[in-house]
Amino acid sequence: MQSVVMATEPVLKVAALCGSLREASFHRGLLHAAMEICKDSIKGMEIEYVDITSLPFMNEDLEVNGIYPPAVEAFRKKIEEADCYLFASPEYNYSVTGPLKNAIDWASRPPNVWADKAAAIVSAGGNFGGGRSHYHLRQIGIFIDLHFINKPELFVYAFESPPKFDSNGVLTDEETKSRLRAVLLALQAFALRFKRKC
Amino acid sequence: MQSVVMATEPVLKVAALCGSLREASFHRGLLHAAMEICKDSIKGMEIEYVDITSLPFMNEDLEVNGIYPPAVEAFRKKIEEADCYLFASPEYNYSVTGPLKNAIDWASRPPNVWADKAAAIVSAGGNFGGGRSHYHLRQIGIFIDLHFINKPELFVYAFESPPKFDSNGVLTDEETKSRLRAVLLALQAFALRFKRKC
Amino acid sequence: MQSVVMATEPVLKVAALCGSLREASFHRGLLHAAMEICKDSIKGMEIEYVDITSLPFMNEDLEVNGIYPPAVEAFRKKIEEADCYLFASPEYNYSVTGPLKNAIDWASRPPNVWADKAAAIVSAGGNFGGGRSHYHLRQIGIFIDLHFINKPELFVYAFESPPKFDSNGVLTDEETKSRLRAVLLALQAFALRFKRKC
Amino acid sequence: MQSVVMATEPVLKVAALCGSLREASFHRGLLHAAMEICKDSIKGMEIEYVDITSLPFMNEDLEVNGIYPPAVEAFRKKIEEADCYLFASPEYNYSVTGPLKNAIDWASRPPNVWADKAAAIVSAGGNFGGGRSHYHLRQIGIFIDLHFINKPELFVYAFESPPKFDSNGVLTDEETKSRLRAVLLALQAFALRFKRKC
Repeated sequence: MQSVVMATEPVLKVAALCGSLREASFHRGLLHAAMEICKDSIKGMEIEYVDITSLPFMNEDLEVNGIYPPAVEAFRKKIEEADCYLFASPEYNYSVTGPLKNAIDWASRPPNVWADKAAAIVSAGGNFGGGRSHYHLRQIGIFIDLHFINKPELFVYAFESPPKFDSNGVLTDEETKSRLRAVLLALQAFALRFKRKC
Repeated sequence: MQSVVMATEPVLKVAALCGSLREASFHRGLLHAAMEICKDSIKGMEIEYVDITSLPFMNEDLEVNGIYPPAVEAFRKKIEEADCYLFASPEYNYSVTGPLKNAIDWASRPPNVWADKAAAIVSAGGNFGGGRSHYHLRQIGIFIDLHFINKPELFVYAFESPPKFDSNGVLTDEETKSRLRAVLLALQAFALRFKRKC
Repeated sequence: MQSVVMATEPVLKVAALCGSLREASFHRGLLHAAMEICKDSIKGMEIEYVDITSLPFMNEDLEVNGIYPPAVEAFRKKIEEADCYLFASPEYNYSVTGPLKNAIDWASRPPNVWADKAAAIVSAGGNFGGGRSHYHLRQIGIFIDLHFINKPELFVYAFESPPKFDSNGVLTDEETKSRLRAVLLALQAFALRFKRKC
Repeated sequence: MQSVVMATEPVLKVAALCGSLREASFHRGLLHAAMEICKDSIKGMEIEYVDITSLPFMNEDLEVNGIYPPAVEAFRKKIEEADCYLFASPEYNYSVTGPLKNAIDWASRPPNVWADKAAAIVSAGGNFGGGRSHYHLRQIGIFIDLHFINKPELFVYAFESPPKFDSNGVLTDEETKSRLRAVLLALQAFALRFKRKC
């Protein structure tokens, strides 16, 4: 009889955040597609959707003796436990959305629970496909100490044919799914290069 | 008896928005100081503080048949009625705050009630005195069609001596007040140059 | 006999600058098209192409007693005489080009000859059609005190069909010409609103 | 007799680029100080100053059959051989300088010889200490695939007392040297985390 000890590679945990609160948001659609793709065909990584809708507006006065409101504490715990991040970041008026910025700011309060982790951004939209939001988010990432993958960048041109999403915001376009998968693989590879003990 | 008709110059109405929700916010302090300065020594301009704390998080699903939630409608009315804008924009994580972005986005929904008006930004903080938030806000302004004054820019180095604010966030430094006044005068001059019929 | 005095409206002078040095540059093509459009169908405005290729690299050591090298002095004179500016700004590595930045910096040396004038940006390219360069250029414009039009923005998707340029960089696409014309009209209107005495 | 085999750690090669062409540039002063600090007190890293003054203006027409002008080829070779980069990036008109952008663009031409390497930025100046140039340079870095350290950022307030540089641009302030050393150590640590085989 033989005893086999398998060294199990720990699974990389990705927290996924959506900057849009709309029900049929393309951005939530991108994250759900990412979760499915990951489950189906990417080993060693799992994505958890982290809701930001129950957070209050950022206000330092709500911090009492280093304790944050319960919804904030719960959110911060999710961010802290993740190994890296996937942002679905719509472009609202050439920048990130208010709710997303609000969530980011809460998790940056001391101790900053984003620090020193890898991240990737995806977006959809007309025009630049949400692209302007990426560069603002990347600048935010400098201070909260995120390490964004440089490539590939994913800007989904949501209104060009062929259709990319159905009316519920579900990603249906295979080519976009394949590009989304490439983002996930790049995030995984980058996050693994970053782990302190390698 | 003589009838005298005085052509009264219409007063320029400034809506003032504060990106911080803190009670003792330096940024609210800057706006209150601006209001006082304006009242005391600037003719032809008046500043109204427009509260953003009662707005819900931006969510297009809350728009029903072109009607926005009551707090949003009230806010949009204030923005629409103003001739120009004064933003007190703190830098949170190298960008604007979530609540401020949220308010901006609500008022940009069709019809965009910011359009084609002059604006100025002031901020306080450590490091760059809130400066990084200005450039993100200016990029936001492109899409919502604001015309920002270029100069003077006001970055208050809040933590350098002499003290700039008291513990309630009241601006106490005379030199800063004088620089703030220069911003207001530049905003007034710029807004007047912009009026379509001049 | 009748004496007729025609109040001649002064013509608005636009200086056009091209960020690319390539012979068959799309950006030079955009400027040449703009010049033709202006001549053919826009009254009260004329565009002069201002060459930047003979400038040395920016180096303050080349300023001697407030005198700049001859090529720089000649360039600065052109910038000073113009009423407003049209930039054809390619996106090189997500920003403006070196030669364009170099030219801008020379004309900003004391006295800054760009100050307080209106400007517009056009670009062509793949991906965002040169768009990322616009936002860097707009930030540069804050310090040199340019007033950019907000709308319309012109990003020519150079590689999408139908073809936009021929192999010599000549703009051939009618729809793009019409969008370019709209930029020129917006620049004209904006510049006129800005003139101090109106 | 004993045979000792020492595994020699390969030395990390840093290419240092200066965005200013001035003789007595503070930025060259920062790089020279960095080279001395590195030699004196940082093991396993060496900094080579890479001159950019002999490059022609970026112009794709100068590329013939994939061959670049000799000065460009020599520059590209230096960039390719380096393991990581240190940029001394002055802020000219709220962005990077023309000569620096020009150099960056040459080395990005196919094949992009910057790709997938770590980098850091230092600057000096009034106001934000050159800070605005950092964020433009970081955006440029996305496309050329640089991985910038997030912290510490070094903005030297060149005109505040105590004096930071002498009249030849030599860095004399000990506290600034110590902050510069911290940047170098962070760059080294970051570059080592990034090496593919670790």
